[in-house]
Amino acid sequence: MVSNFASQSVDPTITGYTVRDLRFPTSLDSIGSDPMNTSGENAHGYIVYHTDVPGLEGIGWSFSNGQGNEVLCAGIRCLAPRFVGRKLSSLTSDFAQTHRNFLGGQTRFMSPELASNAILNAVWDMWAKVEGKPLWKLIADFTPEQLVSVIDFRYITDELTPEQALAWLKEKEKTKQERLDLALKNQAVPGYNTSVGWLGLSDAEVEAGLKKAVDEGFKHFKLKVGLGLETDRKRLGMVRKVAGEDAVIMTDVNQLWDIDFAIEYMPKLADLKLWFIEEPTSPDDILGHARIRKALKPHGIGVATGEHVNNRVMFKQLLQAEAIDAVQLDALRLSGINEILSVCLLAAKFGVPVVPHSGGTGMPELCNHISHFDFVAISGKQSILEYTDHCHEYFTDPAAFSSGHFHAPTAPGYSCQITDEAFAKFECPQGSFWQSEKGQLMLNDPWRGCAAEQTSPMK
Amino acid sequence: MVSNFASQSVDPTITGYTVRDLRFPTSLDSIGSDPMNTSGENAHGYIVYHTDVPGLEGIGWSFSNGQGNEVLCAGIRCLAPRFVGRKLSSLTSDFAQTHRNFLGGQTRFMSPELASNAILNAVWDMWAKVEGKPLWKLIADFTPEQLVSVIDFRYITDELTPEQALAWLKEKEKTKQERLDLALKNQAVPGYNTSVGWLGLSDAEVEAGLKKAVDEGFKHFKLKVGLGLETDRKRLGMVRKVAGEDAVIMTDVNQLWDIDFAIEYMPKLADLKLWFIEEPTSPDDILGHARIRKALKPHGIGVATGEHVNNRVMFKQLLQAEAIDAVQLDALRLSGINEILSVCLLAAKFGVPVVPHSGGTGMPELCNHISHFDFVAISGKQSILEYTDHCHEYFTDPAAFSSGHFHAPTAPGYSCQITDEAFAKFECPQGSFWQSEKGQLMLNDPWRGCAAEQTSPMK
Repeated sequence: MVSNFASQSVDPTITGYTVRDLRFPTSLDSIGSDPMNTSGENAHGYIVYHTDVPGLEGIGWSFSNGQGNEVLCAGIRCLAPRFVGRKLSSLTSDFAQTHRNFLGGQTRFMSPELASNAILNAVWDMWAKVEGKPLWKLIADFTPEQLVSVIDFRYITDELTPEQALAWLKEKEKTKQERLDLALKNQAVPGYNTSVGWLGLSDAEVEAGLKKAVDEGFKHFKLKVGLGLETDRKRLGMVRKVAGEDAVIMTDVNQLWDIDFAIEYMPKLADLKLWFIEEPTSPDDILGHARIRKALKPHGIGVATGEHVNNRVMFKQLLQAEAIDAVQLDALRLSGINEILSVCLLAAKFGVPVVPHSGGTGMPELCNHISHFDFVAISGKQSILEYTDHCHEYFTDPAAFSSGHFHAPTAPGYSCQITDEAFAKFECPQGSFWQSEKGQLMLNDPWRGCAAEQTSPMK
Repeated sequence: MVSNFASQSVDPTITGYTVRDLRFPTSLDSIGSDPMNTSGENAHGYIVYHTDVPGLEGIGWSFSNGQGNEVLCAGIRCLAPRFVGRKLSSLTSDFAQTHRNFLGGQTRFMSPELASNAILNAVWDMWAKVEGKPLWKLIADFTPEQLVSVIDFRYITDELTPEQALAWLKEKEKTKQERLDLALKNQAVPGYNTSVGWLGLSDAEVEAGLKKAVDEGFKHFKLKVGLGLETDRKRLGMVRKVAGEDAVIMTDVNQLWDIDFAIEYMPKLADLKLWFIEEPTSPDDILGHARIRKALKPHGIGVATGEHVNNRVMFKQLLQAEAIDAVQLDALRLSGINEILSVCLLAAKFGVPVVPHSGGTGMPELCNHISHFDFVAISGKQSILEYTDHCHEYFTDPAAFSSGHFHAPTAPGYSCQITDEAFAKFECPQGSFWQSEKGQLMLNDPWRGCAAEQTSPMK
């Protein structure tokens, strides 16, 4: 239970921090398995900023896929001291400059976006708690001027200036109340279901999951593909059969292919009516995605990417090159909410929907805020958000879902907090799971998650 | 002194490793200072692979700019166990697959290129020592088939297939001996001088450095710009005056500008006859570099980038988009020699010279190998290599330079080894420098190297 700090108008000083390494053994249930990542342990580098206000903390975490999470934690420990001794208001009063400075200095050479977002998001979490609002509402309530003021526009002014962003937001403000009402009725953010489609699931598991998902109100489904045409067609056909003709089906191959292979392969699935193929090739290949999208367009198949895109400059180019039909930004890869806001604005300008990547433990909790503020304050258009049904029980403010929609978060803050029970089991290496025989075996495999024989058609 | 293992035909087994954190306090002499990085401590994450062959080690290191080097070391420690217990030949016999697998697994999520190159380069170093050759010669002596076999072509086959690479190398092989002869006479790789142009140097220091460099045979010079037109013109004019009309002058602004600003600013320096502006904007902005290059072309100014480019996919696109006049690949950012070879081949295909980034401690030692094998075996065309005159004394096989040219390395291996004296002073935190009062002050500044007020024209 978070106290109501809003009534106290506090300005906390950050007095110290704690960094924790949390790893959930998700590989044991094939959660997150895909053609490039056969087994991953969803993992968090978790930071708590302590303050001089009793009961007030700022919590943030970033994500890795298990092995090497101690490197992420080392990055967070390296950067965390920068905000110690600072008053919250001194960080948020010119948050664009704070964001820029924070990504600078000697550490800039290593592009520490992953570690940075944990820390910046802990500041956002603290700010939202001080204002007594869930993060999405803090941002939705910003004036256009306030929203623009937290964004560093360096490197994107050729496409979007602060003035243009302001004009866009002012236009959207006129109808904001309608969308806010919809959000407060839990009808703003429809979910799409990925849990049915992990690559490691058997056909029976996929079919059972599908039926459950249809009952829960899902109309959008995403499946991993890339196992060969026959297998892919069988699995996709199952979705179409259970979910019906009106269901929207997306596909994901997690960077497996070279460009020409993607262009050759996907049209052979076109009769199954697919919205997009996600990550058909290297996420860095802007021009490659543009070529694939152009080639697949006549077949009615789009292209999406974003979960491995590090910054606004890459998203700017994906949009400029007309390479994508959905901006799949990742809350834990971009350097915090400041960067995410700039990407949402760019997506809005190009009229491409933001469909956050949310397929890892805790991501739905965070992305739920993002999809809500994007809809209410920025894009003004309804999109969808990825829903996965694992690990919500580890969060003190878990994402809620009913009638096909995410509920708007109501607790103050950014919904980052993990329960004590989860820490007792999954903190690494001292948690009870990691101390078990199975946990030790997993930790001591230096090649954990490497495919023995990867399945790319190319060498 | 490295033993001659070639005569023994050994196949060492890797028995363990040591990782060390080395930081050189280069900021104290303004070495490496530029508009975005006001002070950096050149730093190495250093790995030694031990073997069962007495006297044989594989040494590799990656680079950071000081603060956070412990994060780089944590990354190296995370990945290093993968090769322990392996025979060298089991890694090199299908090195393309080794390279791909090594970048995979659960750690893939964090894109650990920086840590990876230290480890892969230690394997290359060991291989070259076993063959009794300096690394550049090991590669120059490869047959075209051998060279192609160490490269992972995933994601670049739309531009370069293994077959096309093979055809290119076979063509170059016909004239390889001539270039090899030139290399053995130390006339293969002309240097360009950056040491004269660090941003933190006074005018008097720049002028003195210039005179010395001209005497040493340099004909190419690079200066940091971005301090305003008047200052930039004065410093560039000094180079032209001292070095003469025939000198080639390059400029570097280290990512300071937005695209439109670069397009507006640089033509005002066009009368000074500049080869290129390096890193005019975000290194991720492929389309932005292409726009800048197109706009500056009528003014006779080119564009270069690469020191912050992580992989072959980004370089492929920079070349496809006709965005650059020089491929400034970095030996410590790309994931090792395997990745570098693919970038050299792509550059050769597009006819763009490889001009490695070599401005940090120890980089000339490594890049000297790259420029030599690129010239002899791949591009077949003479290019230039950045020369900086600091810290060579810390290496057991320092880069040698005379008459305007780098000497071809002769010691077996990849010239990675640091002297015991350097470790005693600069290992962090236990080295004598870092234990000194000044060293402690530098280590304990969490914002080290952050500009208080950065000088971008944009917010």
